[in-house]
Amino acid sequence: MGTSLELHRPATELTATLVDLESVSGNEAELTDAVEQALRGCPQLSVRRLGNVLVARTELGLSRRVLLAGHLDTVPVAGNLPSRIADGRLHGCGSSDMKAGVALQLRAAHLVGTGALRPATELTWIFYDCEEVEAARNGLNRLAAEQPEQLRADLAILLEPTECAVEGGCQGTMRAEIELTGRRAHSARSWLGVNAIHLAAPVLQRLADYQPREVPVDGLVYREGLNAVGIAGGVAGNVVPDRCTVTVNYRFAPDRDESDAEEHLRSVFDGYRLSVLDSAPSARPGMDQPLVREAVAALGGGRVSAKLGWTDVARFAALGIPALNFGPGDPNLAHRVDESVELAAIERGEQALLAFLAG
Amino acid sequence: MGTSLELHRPATELTATLVDLESVSGNEAELTDAVEQALRGCPQLSVRRLGNVLVARTELGLSRRVLLAGHLDTVPVAGNLPSRIADGRLHGCGSSDMKAGVALQLRAAHLVGTGALRPATELTWIFYDCEEVEAARNGLNRLAAEQPEQLRADLAILLEPTECAVEGGCQGTMRAEIELTGRRAHSARSWLGVNAIHLAAPVLQRLADYQPREVPVDGLVYREGLNAVGIAGGVAGNVVPDRCTVTVNYRFAPDRDESDAEEHLRSVFDGYRLSVLDSAPSARPGMDQPLVREAVAALGGGRVSAKLGWTDVARFAALGIPALNFGPGDPNLAHRVDESVELAAIERGEQALLAFLAG
Repeated sequence: MGTSLELHRPATELTATLVDLESVSGNEAELTDAVEQALRGCPQLSVRRLGNVLVARTELGLSRRVLLAGHLDTVPVAGNLPSRIADGRLHGCGSSDMKAGVALQLRAAHLVGTGALRPATELTWIFYDCEEVEAARNGLNRLAAEQPEQLRADLAILLEPTECAVEGGCQGTMRAEIELTGRRAHSARSWLGVNAIHLAAPVLQRLADYQPREVPVDGLVYREGLNAVGIAGGVAGNVVPDRCTVTVNYRFAPDRDESDAEEHLRSVFDGYRLSVLDSAPSARPGMDQPLVREAVAALGGGRVSAKLGWTDVARFAALGIPALNFGPGDPNLAHRVDESVELAAIERGEQALLAFLAG
Repeated sequence: MGTSLELHRPATELTATLVDLESVSGNEAELTDAVEQALRGCPQLSVRRLGNVLVARTELGLSRRVLLAGHLDTVPVAGNLPSRIADGRLHGCGSSDMKAGVALQLRAAHLVGTGALRPATELTWIFYDCEEVEAARNGLNRLAAEQPEQLRADLAILLEPTECAVEGGCQGTMRAEIELTGRRAHSARSWLGVNAIHLAAPVLQRLADYQPREVPVDGLVYREGLNAVGIAGGVAGNVVPDRCTVTVNYRFAPDRDESDAEEHLRSVFDGYRLSVLDSAPSARPGMDQPLVREAVAALGGGRVSAKLGWTDVARFAALGIPALNFGPGDPNLAHRVDESVELAAIERGEQALLAFLAG
């Protein structure tokens, strides 16, 4: 018999229960069971389960739909379970990233699903698995590929940690490798070789000289970045090396898609052999849409900034759905052994979210 | 009962016997026993043993002394034992580096030690262990530290492989590490960090622009080299790295000692944090000395070039003894699985060496 979630209890208590239900990526079944059981206890919600992904929906006949998304998994536990409360904070693995956000999703589901809160729009909840691991396993990614209609909405809110700030869209990210090729030789007769590490000098100089763009998109300013994140070369202490690789990471504003980003990298490193290793698309914030502006007013008191990191909001953007990031956790504490979340932020986030949903 | 060496047999056969007596560094005892027994069979030689180092000497009342040095150990066996003959070559671990040279030492010891050859000078033979491993274990190094009088001579010939060319002195070698320090940050907010890999650009440019010297020393031209032999940096695919290290190797002509070499490196990389990792001194060829010129005439037909790699001749130079490299092996095959030595080169080398020793 699994743990049952008491959705009528305060969001802070619910967060603690969620944290104590260990759900490292790949091991979400028990938590998914508990969330499913709790959602099925909400008479006004229709609930579907696909593996460890849950979708709950209202069908009230309203014209617009808001979607609340959050992942159930965490990075590996590092001696930081069970949760404990100290100094006004709940400490434990996943507390900030993002069980506090999941608690807000569930509180809204309970209040709407039991009729206690009349929402201004239709609502969809998505709870998914494997966000903390490779994209191919990501539950939202799989749902978007297999049943994209489940993601349809006029606005998606991803409850990843932002300290209750509203952050619009997200930047894209691309990693590429530049390979320098020389000719190996004994370092005592180095003129017989071509040193591949020396050939990297102009590549690093281009990176050092690079002026990243600051791009306004829908009124938000995205600040790009292009950085070497790795360099490797060398055979032995007495050998002129024949190979050196520079790995770069380009964070690009939502006015560029992945194809634009690759084209830009190829122009920056014109004349060099460049291979794209992986990438994830950017997401426009959609600030031109009334529902987005309403969300910013209610959730952020009118304040919104550009999301500079990459998040799953890009999955919605790929379907043309504007998306915001808003959650009570602290992104700087995510993935840390000393991860925690401020209890007052959970309460503040819940109030703002419920006020927005009620319209 | 160990293998006994038949010193009256041709040098090619003796080389094969030596190759088949496996003597990877640290495991030279059996071969040292065999060499000691053979030397003790030469009535006109006095023989001393220190660990796995053997010193044999003549005391004939002649005015000058020539020293013949060679190491008994090999790099690890790589399926290339026992030896075999094919295409006019003897194949096997240590055949070029340097059991063919040891065979020439032993042939000379046999002929002089039994009175068959009257030498023009006094002779010393040194056979030593652990040349292929760290300097602290090197048998010649230990002998030079503990009993430097055993190394005294007017000329030392190291029988390392040169394809029977005469190579004078040797270049020194120094490895140093240049450390670049930045500030770590998430690559999505890279302006909060300082990228240590980007900071390496001017270091690599200095290496790429570096013009190595070509230095005449005692009439031989030494061609220097300064190369990156390693570079490493990077924390993760989404992190601006805070550390990058560039490892360089400087090969320096015998007009510079290790202290000069370090000073030069510090001036090339002025403004950077540089640590010397290790170094070995250069050796002057001593071409101004009559005995050296006689050796060049007899062994090389008057031709001599600068030794560009580093060898144990530097141990003699440190004691003020001029030293040449001369041996039948092929240095390009040393340390290779397909190591071999040309049989005709062993015969040619033996003839030249005996002609020189006879004066």
